[in-house]
Amino acid sequence: MTERLVVVGGDAAGMSAASQARRLRPADELAIVAFERGTATSYSACGIPYWVGGLVEGRDTLIARTPEQFGQRDIDARIRHEVMEIDTSARRVRVRDLDAGTEHDEGYDHLLIATGATPKRPPLDGIDADGVFGVQTLDDGQRLLDALTDRAPRTAVVVGAGYIGLEMAEAMVLRGIEVHVVDGHPQPMPSLDPDMGQRVADAMRSFGITLHLGVRVDGMHVDADGWVDGVEVDGRRLACDVVVLGTGVRPLSDLAADAGIPIGASGGIVTDRRQATPIEGVWAAGDCAQTHHRVSDRGVAIALGTIANKQGRIAGLNIGGVEAAFPGVLGTAITKVCDTEIARTGLNETSARDAGFTPVSAVIEATTRAGYYPGAAPIVVKLVAEHGTGRLLGAQIVGEEGAAKRIDVLATALWNRMTVDDLQQVDLSYAPPFAPVWDPVLVAARRTAAAVDGRD
Amino acid sequence: MTERLVVVGGDAAGMSAASQARRLRPADELAIVAFERGTATSYSACGIPYWVGGLVEGRDTLIARTPEQFGQRDIDARIRHEVMEIDTSARRVRVRDLDAGTEHDEGYDHLLIATGATPKRPPLDGIDADGVFGVQTLDDGQRLLDALTDRAPRTAVVVGAGYIGLEMAEAMVLRGIEVHVVDGHPQPMPSLDPDMGQRVADAMRSFGITLHLGVRVDGMHVDADGWVDGVEVDGRRLACDVVVLGTGVRPLSDLAADAGIPIGASGGIVTDRRQATPIEGVWAAGDCAQTHHRVSDRGVAIALGTIANKQGRIAGLNIGGVEAAFPGVLGTAITKVCDTEIARTGLNETSARDAGFTPVSAVIEATTRAGYYPGAAPIVVKLVAEHGTGRLLGAQIVGEEGAAKRIDVLATALWNRMTVDDLQQVDLSYAPPFAPVWDPVLVAARRTAAAVDGRD
Repeated sequence: MTERLVVVGGDAAGMSAASQARRLRPADELAIVAFERGTATSYSACGIPYWVGGLVEGRDTLIARTPEQFGQRDIDARIRHEVMEIDTSARRVRVRDLDAGTEHDEGYDHLLIATGATPKRPPLDGIDADGVFGVQTLDDGQRLLDALTDRAPRTAVVVGAGYIGLEMAEAMVLRGIEVHVVDGHPQPMPSLDPDMGQRVADAMRSFGITLHLGVRVDGMHVDADGWVDGVEVDGRRLACDVVVLGTGVRPLSDLAADAGIPIGASGGIVTDRRQATPIEGVWAAGDCAQTHHRVSDRGVAIALGTIANKQGRIAGLNIGGVEAAFPGVLGTAITKVCDTEIARTGLNETSARDAGFTPVSAVIEATTRAGYYPGAAPIVVKLVAEHGTGRLLGAQIVGEEGAAKRIDVLATALWNRMTVDDLQQVDLSYAPPFAPVWDPVLVAARRTAAAVDGRD
Repeated sequence: MTERLVVVGGDAAGMSAASQARRLRPADELAIVAFERGTATSYSACGIPYWVGGLVEGRDTLIARTPEQFGQRDIDARIRHEVMEIDTSARRVRVRDLDAGTEHDEGYDHLLIATGATPKRPPLDGIDADGVFGVQTLDDGQRLLDALTDRAPRTAVVVGAGYIGLEMAEAMVLRGIEVHVVDGHPQPMPSLDPDMGQRVADAMRSFGITLHLGVRVDGMHVDADGWVDGVEVDGRRLACDVVVLGTGVRPLSDLAADAGIPIGASGGIVTDRRQATPIEGVWAAGDCAQTHHRVSDRGVAIALGTIANKQGRIAGLNIGGVEAAFPGVLGTAITKVCDTEIARTGLNETSARDAGFTPVSAVIEATTRAGYYPGAAPIVVKLVAEHGTGRLLGAQIVGEEGAAKRIDVLATALWNRMTVDDLQQVDLSYAPPFAPVWDPVLVAARRTAAAVDGRD
């Protein structure tokens, strides 16, 4: 008998799972249908800022695979179809065809929830005004781009100084628009420690971006035509022609919650290592799911394409009959704003303390290449280690071209529970165009090991 | 009573050890004298090709610390002083002042041998002719640069297609000189597997470099003035105006061997993990020493500044009274020739078999950034894993800007004895300017894991 897999959400996690399950089980064994309420499948939401900034050509460039292409693999991917309700006891979902306005029920043997994340849209006066844009979906990106073209705004306010905020600030700079970034935190990139966040702030200012940090956003000002013309910040009006919401996201787990599927403290759907929820036949993967942080040992929800793809693959393997486990995350992340690269992995000093560790840290300044080699760029590395044991707990990097991708070495060290003492000895590559003779990662490990030993 | 540390060789390993020992023990506890037969201390030999190529300004740029600067730290560093003989029973060395032509004896409590490596200079007719240049020391570099300036050669032959040969070929290209590279191996970069070496060969040809591979070099042709004007290759004369020896190096362990200090099969001085030789009071570090390869479990001699620095530090710690162990190497190396980056770590298929493993491998082609992001460059990753267990044994990368430094992730995985199956799950960083959603390292691990499972 043919089993039926229903996928809710047609982006990274959902379609990775569908593709993986299809590779293992042919269509006469497993029918696969995926419902996506938006207008595209398998697109790179992470690419939207670069598209808006003019670095990436067009919307289609960001689409990895269309419904037609999935169709060729016997995966029935339907856009503009929204799953409204899940009935886990009857094992069926209620699906609405958004264009036709009709609804139908769809039964399943396996249900994969891959509904993604949704921007935290603060409940502010005027937040839904014209000229206020989110950047979560391709349609969001298109609307913002149309406004930039049609209205040629001179000043933009970006609300939020996390990853998306920074990337959107860069996009506005690239378009020659004067950029103000506002955030309630006293620093940009709140997942960095304040000293490293300060370096990001300094860099952003050097690129001509005006920062308004530690401020309260009270609402939007709107002109007579209903278009935003200012943001109320700490009781003062910051004039602008367009507002971009670069605020964080939260797991879009409401549909699952309504169906009685357990939700974790992070707001993400609870799953085991196979990406199975506690409800028989129901799986979850990607931004909507809670996952295990390997260093803090806590449940976390991290919205990131690479994790969504990995979890989708694991869900697909299990649904396809091959046992597989998702081993958790480190919270590795990377971004850039203009010429400044930023990366982090694991815990910072604050989150290390929150997780019950006593952290020791060190910060070093070095160069990405041998100091005498052309293009040697500054790099600052901060490591956080456990007092006493010297176990690496986390790392942060701020620098220029070639700096941030070094976070992967630190992520791999963290994955293997290395101590900073062991890390300083690793046989990393060296040649003048690629690194100083002691790679910045090794210098940071050495300095942190000294701090652990109380020698620094 | 004041002890006495004598260092033989004033470059990376020797001066790292001296500096480290000095940090731990003041001058009234430990006197330190270092003898260097050349004209500079602590210089970057690895930087010479870039200096010759015109990318790096001058000789002084490559000198990290002068004898005067060491003097300020109570380290007596004497250039143009050669240690001629070691008497390990009397604990003294015979030193020749090369400028004064005098000799004297110097007693020691600790002796650190850090004599480095020397180019394998094949015993060819005309190898010592004018116009044939090595590139091991700053003086070598200066002589070659002078010749390039004075004689403006149009054609150069580089003998050897390993790291140094490739870097010197690039230097000649940068100077607008027509370059021929000759090597007895059928591929450039013999530490890569042939399929990866072939990619390097293709790239070199695309940069206008003429390769003569798998050939026999029989000697040099010399003009009436004694200047080289051709290289005899497979019985044919390859005309040229200058010859650069980019051949490999061997450990310069003769002085130690003459003193009865044990030499390993690699030609390097035998040491334990503290960098102590079997002879009481005698230590060795850097290119002249044999070290432990963590994957093959064999003694190897690898001439590389980063290893020399690490080993020097370990020797200095032990001499300074702090127990420390050098944990061995992976054979990680990186280089570039024009726009092509090349890196490797661990074992290739051949050396894996030699070490008793049954290797399984996979090769993947990807891009350094998201495919749609500007500057996405090609990267090819080859992984070698152990049949059955899937343990990672080695990695090779050939690609363009941003490709090769990823070898450090693989080196860190190798250091921790990861399997390719575990590696494919590591939480590496992702954002479009830095990587595709599956980093090439992860794609390679996934493909190799499939090969281990017989699925590929």
